[in-house]
Amino acid sequence: MIELRKPYLIFVGDAEIESDAKTGAGLRDWARESCLAQHGVTEKAVDLGLPHMTPEQAAAAGARSLVIGVAPFGGRIAPCWEPALFAAVRAGMDIVSGLHTRLADVPGLAQAAQTSGVALRDVRHPRERYPVATGAKRTGKRVAMVGTDCALGKKYTALALTRALQARKVPADFRATGQTGIMISGSGIAMDAIVADFVAGAAEALSPSAAPDHWDVIEGQGSLFHPAYAAVTLGLLHGSQPDALVLCHDPKRTHIDGYPDFPIRPLDEAANIYLQQARLTNPAVRLVGLSMNTSGLDAARRNQVLAEGAAILGVPAFDPMKTPLDAVVDRLLAN
Amino acid sequence: MIELRKPYLIFVGDAEIESDAKTGAGLRDWARESCLAQHGVTEKAVDLGLPHMTPEQAAAAGARSLVIGVAPFGGRIAPCWEPALFAAVRAGMDIVSGLHTRLADVPGLAQAAQTSGVALRDVRHPRERYPVATGAKRTGKRVAMVGTDCALGKKYTALALTRALQARKVPADFRATGQTGIMISGSGIAMDAIVADFVAGAAEALSPSAAPDHWDVIEGQGSLFHPAYAAVTLGLLHGSQPDALVLCHDPKRTHIDGYPDFPIRPLDEAANIYLQQARLTNPAVRLVGLSMNTSGLDAARRNQVLAEGAAILGVPAFDPMKTPLDAVVDRLLAN
Repeated sequence: MIELRKPYLIFVGDAEIESDAKTGAGLRDWARESCLAQHGVTEKAVDLGLPHMTPEQAAAAGARSLVIGVAPFGGRIAPCWEPALFAAVRAGMDIVSGLHTRLADVPGLAQAAQTSGVALRDVRHPRERYPVATGAKRTGKRVAMVGTDCALGKKYTALALTRALQARKVPADFRATGQTGIMISGSGIAMDAIVADFVAGAAEALSPSAAPDHWDVIEGQGSLFHPAYAAVTLGLLHGSQPDALVLCHDPKRTHIDGYPDFPIRPLDEAANIYLQQARLTNPAVRLVGLSMNTSGLDAARRNQVLAEGAAILGVPAFDPMKTPLDAVVDRLLAN
Repeated sequence: MIELRKPYLIFVGDAEIESDAKTGAGLRDWARESCLAQHGVTEKAVDLGLPHMTPEQAAAAGARSLVIGVAPFGGRIAPCWEPALFAAVRAGMDIVSGLHTRLADVPGLAQAAQTSGVALRDVRHPRERYPVATGAKRTGKRVAMVGTDCALGKKYTALALTRALQARKVPADFRATGQTGIMISGSGIAMDAIVADFVAGAAEALSPSAAPDHWDVIEGQGSLFHPAYAAVTLGLLHGSQPDALVLCHDPKRTHIDGYPDFPIRPLDEAANIYLQQARLTNPAVRLVGLSMNTSGLDAARRNQVLAEGAAILGVPAFDPMKTPLDAVVDRLLAN
């Protein structure tokens, strides 16, 4: 399990628009308390609305990690970023990156980190080894996000559900399964980077035994209906042994993103296949909610698709960014 | 894709009983034409019935690889093996190992291999990278072995089916998905060692486009009903895009091997779930046979379980080690 040191200095590099600093914006929106400040390397760098600090200032104010909050095309570290990375390391901060390029590929950075006693944390390249799954039942409760496709709101659904549970004083932890989620929560496992035989075992490690009334809210990864990524989805589902599932869906999507020959499954078919597969490791699993990504729809249309989805599945439907989660939390805690 | 150089010198080390030299015995049984000779390091070393040659003699006779055919407890390379490994390398042979320990961990062996211009092939530790699956349809035909559990005969079923097809002059290739299969066929991909996001992509690479009447016979890996290994099974199934499935089953097994809380599924339920999952990438997939591991059963009992299984699934049932494959080949080639 990756464990990051908080609070963060969010590094936006030379990105000039917020959509190029999605990771940083996500951290601001979902881990505001962990974001001490931001730093860009040009005058025109995007402003996330956080205090501006240099690495030295941030370290002095208590920041423990500089997090690369930009995702440039190609996933490379730009040469103009390097002075800031070295400054952060010298000031005693870890560097956290979700980029494809490894931090140690920046000439001299690994040596500088070693000298300063700090770590280079490539969350996309985990080095932990996990055991083969045991299938043994763990204590505590788990709810897993599953999707009709990838990248349609599982992470934000899980984060919103965790907050809603915590608001009711239910002990709950968000369990991150991808790099942005790991940065937000400060810990987790990048499931897509695990060797296939150990995916379920890693998922077992991600949500360990807990108090009987504690809920782990598991982010989810991929989709069982994705021709490339279903393997990671299934291993995560089996190892999570979820008591409850929330199906995540984007009603505007007609086919798997990037795979026009693979239509999105009807909601009831998708839910039934997830339940069938999840029963392998938890025969008592039940569907408790439908999370719909209604961005771009007006209020009338949103209410219509939510009502239709709820009617099809017989569970509360919600948009975690737009509508309350009370009904799904009630359903989760019932029983 | 791993490609090995044949023919082989089978190395049995200091193993004294054939069950400790399972890999070597499998190669003798299923790749006899690739096994030039055997070599042991003690007087009492097990005799596989192959000609005895030293590494130097084998190299002179044309052997291209020394294959470690023993699987000692702990998966380590014994110090008493090392002189033979160095002799093979100096004689110009690659070394092929499926052990957990890497060949390069033997002090000096990597350097010796480099000097001789030969390769150390750790088939359990693939270094190739594979692309994300495209889901695009490929030409040629594919039949995949799938199981109610792991380790119940998928590999031997696939090998026997390949032979049966070739005996009818149908162009067919065995596609190995695990280390023993790779050694037998000389090529393949150890699917369980692939990072989860790339399992389906690796499976696409394993059975590339081929002539329309060509069959790839895909070994299969794990089981969808295994709480640890289902991920690799699903990724392999999706990437293989099989036209046909053969369900492999051991009627003596009551639960997943090593997982007493996970009962073996009824045959019809297992077949239906495999077909449902396989339809994602090939909606025309069909079940063509039931392969049963009837070892330990007498002829009357064998015939009984085969007849029962065939009746349940409505497809030919066979034991690839005991009964003819004519009916399953007929079913495969029909349509």
